[in-house]
Amino acid sequence: MTAKLTEAERAELLPTLDGWKHDAARDGIAKRFTFDDFVGAFGFMTRVALLAEKADHHPEWSNVYNKVDILLTTHDADGLSMRDIELARAIEKLA
Amino acid sequence: MTAKLTEAERAELLPTLDGWKHDAARDGIAKRFTFDDFVGAFGFMTRVALLAEKADHHPEWSNVYNKVDILLTTHDADGLSMRDIELARAIEKLA
Repeated sequence: MTAKLTEAERAELLPTLDGWKHDAARDGIAKRFTFDDFVGAFGFMTRVALLAEKADHHPEWSNVYNKVDILLTTHDADGLSMRDIELARAIEKLA
Repeated sequence: MTAKLTEAERAELLPTLDGWKHDAARDGIAKRFTFDDFVGAFGFMTRVALLAEKADHHPEWSNVYNKVDILLTTHDADGLSMRDIELARAIEKLA
């Protein structure tokens, strides 16, 4: 069981993430990434997929042409956990 | 400008597609593909991405772990066109 982040942890960690918004309905964090075209968007997705598989922590995501919407939440924790913060940070390094 | 399918064309073509449902709200066709795990799902997405880029016709799609939801519609036609039917057929050959 992965621990859900406490209020104090959220207050500290969420402002450190660039452009990720808290999704209250899902208790996750979400961000849209926009690229020049489909090749840019899917190339990014491929790199995220490799990170996610390595971390054994997978995004909920969608793609329409040059846009990729990512939502990170932790099913085991029934909400936001440190694993989401870590995956968001790793994704930022790719984007 | 790509032509939207006529009622007669829809009546003929849609029943030939395995498991694709007409999405009336978007005037597109949609199907969920389920795999053993994320690697199976993303591997499939990668193969679809290459087909889509080659056809210059891209899906609207989402992925959650082992599931991939695909919606095909043609923005140029403001609805379902032959390009969607052809891409659906090509995807079926991969799945």
